[in-house]
Amino acid sequence: MFDPVEKLKEFIRFPSVSTDSSFKEGMAGSQKFVSDLLGSMGFKVEVVKTDVHPLVLASRGGDPSWPHVVIYGHYDVQPADPVALWKTPPFEPTIVGNRIYGRGAADNKGPLMTNIAAVAALLEENPALPLRITFLVEGEEEMGSPSFPAFLEKYAGRLKEADFVYLSDTALPNEQQVVITCGLRGLALLDVVVTGAKGDLHSGLHGGVFRNPIQALSEILATLHTPEGLVNVPGFYDGVLSVEPWERAELSKLAGDGKAYMDFLGVDTFYTTPGFSPFESVRFQPTLEFNGIGGGYQGEGTKTVIPSKAFAKISCRLVPNQEPDRIKELVCKTILSRAPKGVKIDFVDQHKGDPYVVVPPGRPNTPQGQSPVLARAFRATDEAVSAVWGRPPLYLREGGSVPIIAEIKKSTGLDSVMLGLFLPEDNLHAPNESFNLDVMRKGVETAKRILRGITTS
Amino acid sequence: MFDPVEKLKEFIRFPSVSTDSSFKEGMAGSQKFVSDLLGSMGFKVEVVKTDVHPLVLASRGGDPSWPHVVIYGHYDVQPADPVALWKTPPFEPTIVGNRIYGRGAADNKGPLMTNIAAVAALLEENPALPLRITFLVEGEEEMGSPSFPAFLEKYAGRLKEADFVYLSDTALPNEQQVVITCGLRGLALLDVVVTGAKGDLHSGLHGGVFRNPIQALSEILATLHTPEGLVNVPGFYDGVLSVEPWERAELSKLAGDGKAYMDFLGVDTFYTTPGFSPFESVRFQPTLEFNGIGGGYQGEGTKTVIPSKAFAKISCRLVPNQEPDRIKELVCKTILSRAPKGVKIDFVDQHKGDPYVVVPPGRPNTPQGQSPVLARAFRATDEAVSAVWGRPPLYLREGGSVPIIAEIKKSTGLDSVMLGLFLPEDNLHAPNESFNLDVMRKGVETAKRILRGITTS
Repeated sequence: MFDPVEKLKEFIRFPSVSTDSSFKEGMAGSQKFVSDLLGSMGFKVEVVKTDVHPLVLASRGGDPSWPHVVIYGHYDVQPADPVALWKTPPFEPTIVGNRIYGRGAADNKGPLMTNIAAVAALLEENPALPLRITFLVEGEEEMGSPSFPAFLEKYAGRLKEADFVYLSDTALPNEQQVVITCGLRGLALLDVVVTGAKGDLHSGLHGGVFRNPIQALSEILATLHTPEGLVNVPGFYDGVLSVEPWERAELSKLAGDGKAYMDFLGVDTFYTTPGFSPFESVRFQPTLEFNGIGGGYQGEGTKTVIPSKAFAKISCRLVPNQEPDRIKELVCKTILSRAPKGVKIDFVDQHKGDPYVVVPPGRPNTPQGQSPVLARAFRATDEAVSAVWGRPPLYLREGGSVPIIAEIKKSTGLDSVMLGLFLPEDNLHAPNESFNLDVMRKGVETAKRILRGITTS
Repeated sequence: MFDPVEKLKEFIRFPSVSTDSSFKEGMAGSQKFVSDLLGSMGFKVEVVKTDVHPLVLASRGGDPSWPHVVIYGHYDVQPADPVALWKTPPFEPTIVGNRIYGRGAADNKGPLMTNIAAVAALLEENPALPLRITFLVEGEEEMGSPSFPAFLEKYAGRLKEADFVYLSDTALPNEQQVVITCGLRGLALLDVVVTGAKGDLHSGLHGGVFRNPIQALSEILATLHTPEGLVNVPGFYDGVLSVEPWERAELSKLAGDGKAYMDFLGVDTFYTTPGFSPFESVRFQPTLEFNGIGGGYQGEGTKTVIPSKAFAKISCRLVPNQEPDRIKELVCKTILSRAPKGVKIDFVDQHKGDPYVVVPPGRPNTPQGQSPVLARAFRATDEAVSAVWGRPPLYLREGGSVPIIAEIKKSTGLDSVMLGLFLPEDNLHAPNESFNLDVMRKGVETAKRILRGITTS
């Protein structure tokens, strides 16, 4: 059995930045590292070519009656910029205290290595373990998984043979409390571009005669929320999944102090859906946010121009059962209906992702006929977490988005058990990313127990 | 007597870009050229040091009972960028047909040379001309005349001895029609900066809980106009100078086709003050415009950030009797009163300029006790333009701003006679700037007649 920490060091040394083509070699090295490691564990490894970075599919077959888990992870990482802010070289893993520093340490090399190590240990202990395992390790997560839909189209048939997906690419709120993520918000993104006059004009010679596009854009954007902060787009909330009392109860065990959250944000007023606390709003309610706005002169000093164009970048976070395309349509329709006369409105379509929710067994809203293996996996997870961490996990929906989870569900029917392993202080996507080695140690033990647990009905 | 066109060529050859310190030599050369030329005409030349570029003050004294005119101009020019778009080198004057091409040809070297040549010719014809003349030629016009207030503070006493200011730094609407500019809009500029959370935040983890500053900014900006397009700031229109019927009548002789103006702008709807045509709105009504807006992610694609800050650049064009500081105060007060809770509002004060209006003699609203020399200058201008151009000038207010005109009025009491000499097709501030030599020829003759006219009561 290999040393998981030493293997993680090797893994981090590959600078596998997927979005930057100058890291081609690091990407190839990282992929080969994963393939070789899984191969050495007896897995049948297939490197699936995509338009950008290949995906590693590694399987351990067995009796078709055995349960079958797909373990997801990704071997690519975020860029290390700004490199100057790193205290240790980003691709030179460095252990300080109980932390290992390096780009990708927490997202996702550490958690992925945790699960690989658990499988390796388990198979060493019991080479006859009655469990089919497929590792699905992609190399495009940090660029939005552009090749994933095409991959799914081709491989959905094979994945459908599995029972569920297991992954560790979500967060722990703190070192004491494990969270099983049971819901992710979806996304619907678009830009709106407002055009006034056909060119930039002098505000002295032509000001006060026609609609300035910045003004028109502001007028439009100002209509998209109610004063209380609700999204003011007709039909936006249609079909929004209601929140079960058990979900609120579960969250209340975690959710902290509103005042402390205000201090963290640096604001003095919350705007949430009536009846929802800020913690509930983020996890259970959809949003429409402006991620960017631009137009005219933005430099120092002044330039008395009336710009021809102004734009805003809009993103909606969606909850079940909102459909991204329908939401985009509603937003566009609403904007068009509220645009003042005298300006032209154009839209730039951006990406999207479905929301996702999975209900653990034994809840009032657990779907009838839930896969028994999935139910067993949830129970095994609960038991494993309780045993290893001394406290049962919380089952919570999350405000963020991992679009591939809904995509997998859509094309294969598989649900996911998402056990978070990174902490808020791990600095994901930021300089000095690190991974807590105590969490890793507990994580290996937890994953071993979960996987073992699935095999015993 | 020198050849005005040859002298203008010499003048254009100095690359006198005031805003770019690498053109120091061109600035010094341009200043020396003006000083030497006026010196050679018998003027007593004083080079007034300022914090940036010196100002040339050149005077021809005489009997204190003689009328005294200050002729204003500027020896600096706009940058020539983008140089690649010039068909001839910007600082190599080139005559094609009846036009001389070069940076500054029309703004302001050509018109200034026109007036200098007129004075030279006049003094050659009649060395005993009973007229005191002070040339005031600045080198910071294209950078907003930053040293002008300090200059005025020191020299107001001397300038007060004069009777009026004469300048050619405004526009002719076309080659047939001379316009005497009788009003300029003022300016009040400021930025508004809205801060939400204390840093940029992930829209998945924190979206839907607090006020996004782009949203707050849009909501604020959207309140600053009525749906009809009026400025919706309490007190904004207080004291706005009413428009005299003669002003509307005068403008109606010039103002063209609304449809053609729409086509020029490329819009399909006008928003103007009720009771004002678009042409009237621009000249007689104040505005509040957004010159720029920015915040969050503005690049390609998407970034699901909730930015910490968003800002807008606001400029008001003012008409008499709006006071820039009071208007800034009203705008700030209004913005603060309309800002939603949960965001912080800051302002960045930018520059300002008073509006200006001068009424020619013989109008219903001509001030009692108007300076007789000023009245004589207006009459002489009317006669000169009628004689040389075959059509009397129009007396119009203009939408643009020349803040120094109001500053001179404020600190010295002097009004200005502004006779436009550049045409819309002269490409001011743009590549391939040129000056029409027929206009120059007529301009010299016109200025001679005006100056001669003032001396004969």
